[in-house]
Amino acid sequence: MGTYQNILVAIDLNEEADKVVRKACQMGLQTGAKLTLIHVTEPLSYAYGGDIPMDLSSIQKQLHEHAEQRMSNFVQQHKLDDVDQLLVSGHIETEVHRVANELSSDLIVVGSHGRHGLALLLGSTSNGILHGATCDVLAVRI
Amino acid sequence: MGTYQNILVAIDLNEEADKVVRKACQMGLQTGAKLTLIHVTEPLSYAYGGDIPMDLSSIQKQLHEHAEQRMSNFVQQHKLDDVDQLLVSGHIETEVHRVANELSSDLIVVGSHGRHGLALLLGSTSNGILHGATCDVLAVRI
Repeated sequence: MGTYQNILVAIDLNEEADKVVRKACQMGLQTGAKLTLIHVTEPLSYAYGGDIPMDLSSIQKQLHEHAEQRMSNFVQQHKLDDVDQLLVSGHIETEVHRVANELSSDLIVVGSHGRHGLALLLGSTSNGILHGATCDVLAVRI
Repeated sequence: MGTYQNILVAIDLNEEADKVVRKACQMGLQTGAKLTLIHVTEPLSYAYGGDIPMDLSSIQKQLHEHAEQRMSNFVQQHKLDDVDQLLVSGHIETEVHRVANELSSDLIVVGSHGRHGLALLLGSTSNGILHGATCDVLAVRI
């Protein structure tokens, strides 16, 4: 039995995701674990507050389609066709924890910038995912 | 080439360390990495402030000897004689980062309680080690 059976890989879909996915794939090969990629798009209201006097739904839809396209390109580029992919919308930490629980993930892999000071207090994503996770978390240095 | 070559395992020397070390040993076996155990004893002045009107040095010495004994028992119990062991004194996060840099560790393994709220702001050890680390960090859920 390997160390991990179900690895959930939370990615940004930018060039930083390469390193995270490469590390996760190596871990998957070594442990024989099943990999699932997840990308979370945060609703615009989270970033700009909920009281903007405009209809964000069409922009939201465009952003989601853009993310779908990027996920598709990313998967093709990294030859990850046999890896499950999830594109969800919501609060990043909440969604990653929810999906990790649903999939009974035993490891979450996420990129980390290792921020200090204010950024630490404001909470980076890796930090947010570490806290509240019910499984192990591997923070890959970017 | 494995994912990791040099794994630094930061442990508490209590029963929680068992899970962290077990996971680190599995990772070591799978990746062929060299393992180093580190336990950091914090100077009492860090915990009680620097202005206590008493000489702490003899208590400090006793604590260090106690930690040495516990590390020795731990290593024997887990049959880790071929694993390097370090017992250092100082601020936990600082010492773990310093030693990780010195040893060119590419992974730090540490236990994590996944605390929320206030404990998160106050900074748990896994959180402190994650931030400021120049290599990957695996937080093992305890």
